[in-house]
Amino acid sequence: MKVVITGGIGFLGRKLAERLLADGALNGQAIDRLVLFDRLAGDVAPGDDRVLTVVGDLTDPDQVTGVLADADAVFHLGAIVSGQAEEDLDLGLRVNLDGTRNVLQACRGGGRRPLLVFTSSIAAYGGDLPQTIDDATPLTPATSYGAQKVACEMLVMDFTRRGLIDGRTVRLPTISVRPGKPNKAASGFASGIVREPLSGVDFACPVTPESSMVILSPRRAVDGFVWVAGLADETLGHDRSILLPGITATMAQMVEAVRRAGGDDAANRISFKHDPAIQSIVDGWPRAIAARRAAGLGFAGDRTIDEVIAAFVADELTAA
Amino acid sequence: MKVVITGGIGFLGRKLAERLLADGALNGQAIDRLVLFDRLAGDVAPGDDRVLTVVGDLTDPDQVTGVLADADAVFHLGAIVSGQAEEDLDLGLRVNLDGTRNVLQACRGGGRRPLLVFTSSIAAYGGDLPQTIDDATPLTPATSYGAQKVACEMLVMDFTRRGLIDGRTVRLPTISVRPGKPNKAASGFASGIVREPLSGVDFACPVTPESSMVILSPRRAVDGFVWVAGLADETLGHDRSILLPGITATMAQMVEAVRRAGGDDAANRISFKHDPAIQSIVDGWPRAIAARRAAGLGFAGDRTIDEVIAAFVADELTAA
Repeated sequence: MKVVITGGIGFLGRKLAERLLADGALNGQAIDRLVLFDRLAGDVAPGDDRVLTVVGDLTDPDQVTGVLADADAVFHLGAIVSGQAEEDLDLGLRVNLDGTRNVLQACRGGGRRPLLVFTSSIAAYGGDLPQTIDDATPLTPATSYGAQKVACEMLVMDFTRRGLIDGRTVRLPTISVRPGKPNKAASGFASGIVREPLSGVDFACPVTPESSMVILSPRRAVDGFVWVAGLADETLGHDRSILLPGITATMAQMVEAVRRAGGDDAANRISFKHDPAIQSIVDGWPRAIAARRAAGLGFAGDRTIDEVIAAFVADELTAA
Repeated sequence: MKVVITGGIGFLGRKLAERLLADGALNGQAIDRLVLFDRLAGDVAPGDDRVLTVVGDLTDPDQVTGVLADADAVFHLGAIVSGQAEEDLDLGLRVNLDGTRNVLQACRGGGRRPLLVFTSSIAAYGGDLPQTIDDATPLTPATSYGAQKVACEMLVMDFTRRGLIDGRTVRLPTISVRPGKPNKAASGFASGIVREPLSGVDFACPVTPESSMVILSPRRAVDGFVWVAGLADETLGHDRSILLPGITATMAQMVEAVRRAGGDDAANRISFKHDPAIQSIVDGWPRAIAARRAAGLGFAGDRTIDEVIAAFVADELTAA
């Protein structure tokens, strides 16, 4: 089968690619072609002749159509992140909304009904939120990123209902710990507060110690992508969106977890330098998740912050 | 002030135009220009020099920008109706989604923050619905029309949050009784079952007598547009969408109400001829509405089917 990952050179795209290559199959079908479509060039699994990297632009319908021709499964991860979508409304609309429409349109035709895993976000929720959100919490996003993601969820549901695709949407909590350089995601600090001090780098947290985030580790996120792809069509039914679980941690709790993992030297590298713009976005996000649908269907998230940090150390620091 | 109605030559657009012209003002400000933008030509209030009709296409950004320049308030009613959006996915996406984006973009700029009343629909709800829906019922539309409307609701909310517009969305029940010829709305029979027999025309109802619809009269719909435009910005807050109230009637009840209004002659003109495609769409729609938000803010719908039918007779049959 041919599998395409948009945003395939991004951090989660690479991890998913490595997982799929290691599995060698998706839903019991051998993967003979894995296409990584990204606006950036990159090298994933060099020498593995199943892999093809394609540099291109989600906003170009012809490029997207070319890449998705004959795809049996698509993981659509490519997007403008939340901070940047907030800075530049038009860019977010072009990439996150029009880009996703290009993906949907490119999946049509030829009698096929490709599997599409779409990555939405807990930014789908916002405004006057209950302390704990679940799948049925009203969708009133308080960021442009969230609004664009929900708009696309509707199209994924509709294209699925019409029999054009077999769509599944996962609403992701903040992914932490991300390796590498900070990006423009407003949630970036939830990774930086662990990654930087454990790498010997000072880190200024832009939100208050009492601020909390709901996080999911990269390992479990990739597990979630593969898991949702494997659910029976009829199990999902009409509503194609599933909120993935996350654990809640305040920044103060993150500091203490960093101290347990890396000692006082690491914890003391963390300072707090308030950024009202980031604080305002983060204050609009949920405090806790009850991922009832995912749990009912057998998917479990991370158990503790310490486990999340240990996985980061094993996968990114020790491996590097 | 300058007010624009998209779909201004359509049935509800005309009624709204006549109401605004009679009021002479919106939210206490005199209306000196009322622009009716529609793909069809038409003549509303001939001789009234406040009115300008513009024939054009919502999918053309330049035309929309031209018409909305300097608009202080926009009632965005123009759309492809549900049946047609179901028949032609791409047409629905172009008009209902891209067209609304054109309207939103045309409202930007120049430091103004125009009022935008957007018409969504109870088609925003669908799938595995509770017997009674309210504002907070999950948005899982079961038609392309509904999916496109919800996608736009998200953009209206986001553009409002960003301070680009002062957006308000009303989710309309099925409007009944519509005058004139049947259109391609899947809900058209809810008007036809009253309009045709009372006009001496035979009518074949495409859904079973037990099938129910939630309806709002044109009079109350227009009241709702003007009412929502007048709500204080802070009353609405972050969530800009309000479900309008509707009353529930089965087709059998409609037949009896027609009998009360027009006698056996009228009622006997109604027959039932099942259309599985229409039935399937209608079965995905809510059975009853608890319009809690609208009620809490003081808006009341129709009281009885007989009242709805009497208004139709007075406004459309007696007047004509």
